[in-house]
Amino acid sequence: MYDAAIIGTGPAGLSAALTLKIHKKNIIWFGSKNICEKVAKAEKINNYPGFPAVSGAELAAAFQAHAQQMELEVTDSVVNNIVPMGDHYAILAGADFCEAKTVLLASGIAQTGTLPNEDKLLGHGVSYCATCDGLLYKGKDIAVILGAKRLEHEAEYLAGLAAHIDLFPTYKDCGIELPNVTVHTDRPKEISGEGHVEGIVLTSGESISVSGVFCLRTSVSLTSLIKEVETENGHIKVDRTQQTNLPGCYAAGDCTGRPYQYTKAAGEGNVAAHSIINYLAENK
Amino acid sequence: MYDAAIIGTGPAGLSAALTLKIHKKNIIWFGSKNICEKVAKAEKINNYPGFPAVSGAELAAAFQAHAQQMELEVTDSVVNNIVPMGDHYAILAGADFCEAKTVLLASGIAQTGTLPNEDKLLGHGVSYCATCDGLLYKGKDIAVILGAKRLEHEAEYLAGLAAHIDLFPTYKDCGIELPNVTVHTDRPKEISGEGHVEGIVLTSGESISVSGVFCLRTSVSLTSLIKEVETENGHIKVDRTQQTNLPGCYAAGDCTGRPYQYTKAAGEGNVAAHSIINYLAENK
Repeated sequence: MYDAAIIGTGPAGLSAALTLKIHKKNIIWFGSKNICEKVAKAEKINNYPGFPAVSGAELAAAFQAHAQQMELEVTDSVVNNIVPMGDHYAILAGADFCEAKTVLLASGIAQTGTLPNEDKLLGHGVSYCATCDGLLYKGKDIAVILGAKRLEHEAEYLAGLAAHIDLFPTYKDCGIELPNVTVHTDRPKEISGEGHVEGIVLTSGESISVSGVFCLRTSVSLTSLIKEVETENGHIKVDRTQQTNLPGCYAAGDCTGRPYQYTKAAGEGNVAAHSIINYLAENK
Repeated sequence: MYDAAIIGTGPAGLSAALTLKIHKKNIIWFGSKNICEKVAKAEKINNYPGFPAVSGAELAAAFQAHAQQMELEVTDSVVNNIVPMGDHYAILAGADFCEAKTVLLASGIAQTGTLPNEDKLLGHGVSYCATCDGLLYKGKDIAVILGAKRLEHEAEYLAGLAAHIDLFPTYKDCGIELPNVTVHTDRPKEISGEGHVEGIVLTSGESISVSGVFCLRTSVSLTSLIKEVETENGHIKVDRTQQTNLPGCYAAGDCTGRPYQYTKAAGEGNVAAHSIINYLAENK
């Protein structure tokens, strides 16, 4: 049983991981191994104190060097579901499972929203996990919405099972070239089906008939990640200690609301880590 | 009229000043010109993201370089009183006076507490401002509690007026050598007097008769700085936007409570700056 599971490797997750590591807590840290990868895309940052007029790439490199120096390890799998179990949490990440006494949600804001009917058809043809549900679609036609290059191996795994895949990458330079995969440049507009997935409708108006839709994004929507957590205007509601409505469950960074700033995210990660340390001391 | 007055040049004040400057706000920034001087005293900091295993001196130097690069100017006078004026604030700093639409309290935690009877006798022989009240003690015997080397000029000014000064520096290496000044190594325990200052009692038990006591600290206690602001357990009470109970008055950093951490302080300063920007936009 881990002391804490941190979801997200942006500045909030990093800040919390550093502080929990210093306090010798046993943590598991989920997210991209390319720590703070979105920071690297920023052109220029002028207000992260201590780094005058820094480029995103330089700041991300400093963050990565810090994680390395502190020997922090990242578990590079997408967390699909977190279940409150009373005095701890069960975390499902791909086909893996782990337990932690506390959880820190630091997954940022979803860069892409969910599609119409996605929530409704989740578990009825819509899946977030290739490893978990791939076998259900052996020999069938499916659609895959793919959120990042680092998830391509999951789409390739599905291509080895399905008859045909209509693939919708949401990033540039998709590297998948397989005989049974059609890579689309058009975008999906909605998932269709009553009670079960029947197809996917594109922005062009075209409709494609499929048996299942895999939405493989770098993060799942907050409400499907942990459905018991209280939100407000699309953000996780937290108090001044970064606690959510669930005891032992904290949130930090962009997912708690504006301003979407690295400094704010790092500050909240620090506060959340201290709250976790206090919580662990009180609930031994 | 300034858009914002920032009180304090620690990480919280710096973080806010950077963001307000980027947003082209007209600010006045009060505190030590030696920005983040307390940071410099830290031996090693491991959890300010982006600076692996940094010394306090190195981190403070990075903060100072950032302030310099952004051409931020510091007004090196101690703020004695802030008065809410309805739609703006009046700020008294030494003998100077200015007005600002908003105020950010980022003065840290007082390193020394107030003395017994200090609050009660404030304005009745107890003063926080040499320039304001010095003339009242011409030819009289007074005690001066001095909080920092950079305030020595104020004690010297008082020595030019008073008959004799019993001086209690709270830092090392006091540089004042004047015929009418007795520099004590013993510490004051309480201020005595009913209705008006009569003397000062030392930890040794010795009692010295004086007409007035000047408490010249780098920051005055929060409640005497702005008496309308709501506190909780000795800290300023703020919401998630860093707003205090007073519209247009914000607080950030150690003065809002634990954890006393640079990362937390910088994060709160960032959030406060954005709240100030929003407030100014809504109250044009």
